[in-house]
Amino acid sequence: MERSLIADTVGKVGQKVRLEGWANTIRDHGKITFIDLRDRSGIIQCVGESLKRVSPESVIEIMGTISERPEKLINPKIATGSVEIQIESLKVLSPAAELPFDMGGEDLNVDLPTLLDYRALTLRHKKQQAIFKVQAVIIDAFRQALLKKDFIEFQAPSIISSVPEGGAEVFKVKYFDHEAYLSQSPQLYKSLLVGIFERVFSVNQIFRAEPSVTTRHLTEATSLDAEFGFIDSWKDVLDMEEYVIRFIFSEVEKKCSDELALFDATLPKISDKIPVLKLKEAQKIIYKRTGRDVRAEKDLAPEDEREICKWSLEEKGSDLVYISHFVTKKKPFYVSPDPEDPSYAFSVDLLGRGVEWSSGGQRLNDYKVILEHVKEWGLKEKDIELYLQSFKFGVPPLGGFALGAERVTMHILGLKNVREASLFPRDMERVDLRFSR
Amino acid sequence: MERSLIADTVGKVGQKVRLEGWANTIRDHGKITFIDLRDRSGIIQCVGESLKRVSPESVIEIMGTISERPEKLINPKIATGSVEIQIESLKVLSPAAELPFDMGGEDLNVDLPTLLDYRALTLRHKKQQAIFKVQAVIIDAFRQALLKKDFIEFQAPSIISSVPEGGAEVFKVKYFDHEAYLSQSPQLYKSLLVGIFERVFSVNQIFRAEPSVTTRHLTEATSLDAEFGFIDSWKDVLDMEEYVIRFIFSEVEKKCSDELALFDATLPKISDKIPVLKLKEAQKIIYKRTGRDVRAEKDLAPEDEREICKWSLEEKGSDLVYISHFVTKKKPFYVSPDPEDPSYAFSVDLLGRGVEWSSGGQRLNDYKVILEHVKEWGLKEKDIELYLQSFKFGVPPLGGFALGAERVTMHILGLKNVREASLFPRDMERVDLRFSR
Repeated sequence: MERSLIADTVGKVGQKVRLEGWANTIRDHGKITFIDLRDRSGIIQCVGESLKRVSPESVIEIMGTISERPEKLINPKIATGSVEIQIESLKVLSPAAELPFDMGGEDLNVDLPTLLDYRALTLRHKKQQAIFKVQAVIIDAFRQALLKKDFIEFQAPSIISSVPEGGAEVFKVKYFDHEAYLSQSPQLYKSLLVGIFERVFSVNQIFRAEPSVTTRHLTEATSLDAEFGFIDSWKDVLDMEEYVIRFIFSEVEKKCSDELALFDATLPKISDKIPVLKLKEAQKIIYKRTGRDVRAEKDLAPEDEREICKWSLEEKGSDLVYISHFVTKKKPFYVSPDPEDPSYAFSVDLLGRGVEWSSGGQRLNDYKVILEHVKEWGLKEKDIELYLQSFKFGVPPLGGFALGAERVTMHILGLKNVREASLFPRDMERVDLRFSR
Repeated sequence: MERSLIADTVGKVGQKVRLEGWANTIRDHGKITFIDLRDRSGIIQCVGESLKRVSPESVIEIMGTISERPEKLINPKIATGSVEIQIESLKVLSPAAELPFDMGGEDLNVDLPTLLDYRALTLRHKKQQAIFKVQAVIIDAFRQALLKKDFIEFQAPSIISSVPEGGAEVFKVKYFDHEAYLSQSPQLYKSLLVGIFERVFSVNQIFRAEPSVTTRHLTEATSLDAEFGFIDSWKDVLDMEEYVIRFIFSEVEKKCSDELALFDATLPKISDKIPVLKLKEAQKIIYKRTGRDVRAEKDLAPEDEREICKWSLEEKGSDLVYISHFVTKKKPFYVSPDPEDPSYAFSVDLLGRGVEWSSGGQRLNDYKVILEHVKEWGLKEKDIELYLQSFKFGVPPLGGFALGAERVTMHILGLKNVREASLFPRDMERVDLRFSR
């Protein structure tokens, strides 16, 4: 008999089925046993008499008949709550060892180290699964949004030959007789590709040798990168990003209502338009609202970001807010200064729910100006030769942005630690399992 | 005035438009100049009098009027061949330096080192662009095919903490105070995730410290990985892969007819069903057809692969052929032996047009047997702890496959070297540019 999926049992009362899945929970009432069977499509109650003992999480096959539950036993919380399976035979396909903690509850009550040390097991919990279903939808929505706008997908390389901007936070790779590095961002590649395809995006792993353990940094993360040319203004970049964000939210809302409900999560509110503040304006608002005088600072501190998000929600009805015009000299060489005041740049962060979601902006496209910046920033032309090659032969005005897939997932679902939004999080202390075991 | 795309000019004779793009070719006939303008949508002839000099590949803006070409000047080779633009004004947005070689021909006549040393420029040639448009379609088709079958996408990590099977061909990463490695394959991750999601796929970079320069190896490549559980037989894996391959071909055929035509490429033929040969059967066929006695070999040599593909096309009408039942001990520990003769395994390569496209098969899912293999293969349990954790708690019978995106692109288009199918190929001698310059 063909395997049926659990989700397909509803409405087929009286039919005999073969189901396969995991024994999610087992309630042994003496002779009668209830097994909640879980497969990729859902969960269903199965009931049988004199069954052989099955351990939770074992993979089993159940042959049985779909029957209607008595009205008062209907479980409105699950999609199959109106039916159950009368078990006729049960076969263990792959037995599970004794669980180190209870997996059956609505929440998985383990601390973060345990959650990660038992990653292959804890991911089976429905709330953990839900995180990565949402993440898959976010990532696919990012791509679909850009495909609709004529962007082409590219595969960004991870191994790079030089770190033009130096920085201790880069991983070194022994590359035959040479030293190579792991890419912190596909920025230079995506910009140079604008000279070829006009509009490009990539979903790629990025690497940062972050030497501290925080709730929002990973050493390996998934970056959603987009870049496009023939912009008329830096604001075109903001509009494109807003379009992508709205598309992502609408896909998550459409496809992940069950997952959002598990986390009591609501999608961030966006007003008619995401508000835009220059850094200086943001600093004035913070001063006015809190008395903290941050007006001479060159960046926003985490508490400033939280305050501006509060302001944005209260005054503009938006959980998201753009901050533009950061200090040119604090930004990478490729960022375009604002001609009206070149000490500030067309550099834009998107803040959401108190933290940074993305950064982006308009880039330089004038080869001569790029060469001047390279000098001023103290870089070596040889370290960015391929990038310079593109601009030497003509690249249109361009800009773009990068979203962190884990951060977006985290803040949509209200997770406390970005590690929860990475299947296999890596940090200073851990690659899969802790080094210090 | 809003920018128009070149592809949208056809049928709008008499309208005034603003076009932006690259000066693909320039033909100066004294007072009259012809410029073929290229943007992401196509190419169009523009004509003007007394224009200022523009260098090829410069980014320009043209304001002009769409006019019909005289019947005998219609160019049937391009989509906009029935019209041209009467230039009213021309502005250089980003000038190009003098080109190191001619970019205007139907083919880009440069050798491979030049092709790669000038990657940011050579990719602008329409045949180079075409390769990566086809690749983007292949990759998206892979994902769409599997999404339709209820697979979930995951992000495979690149940094790994151990190399369970050793091997010199792995890159080392300095990871804070530890040594880490770059992943050669997401195999263990995708298998362990079957214990969670049943059906998973990923598009990810893989890394091999290939110490030789060949026409078919890259040190960094894009792997298309799929894995799924609750299979009834190893043949389910072949069927799923065949479905994915057919889906990819049909998408490429639908979306890339122009790109295929540029390469005079035809999609590989598949008969009703991809033929399946056991290694031993393949060896007998080779002996019979060529007299070369390879029946005692433990693998197929490149010339054997070519011969079997010839056989497959001649005898079965299929450019693709599966080879199964490789020698168990020559395969990784996780491969499932065939119970009928455990010295051969449910391990399957897909050959296409003379070379290997993918490998896959059924994996072990019995925890005890896996542990036995780990011992027999001389591995350390600690090196694959997270993988073992999954199987300790129940994983269904499973299998999967991995396709190399560059190889599939290469063999669909008939490219000679896999480097041509990688935007930024990396090998022993090169990361972007050659080390030995």
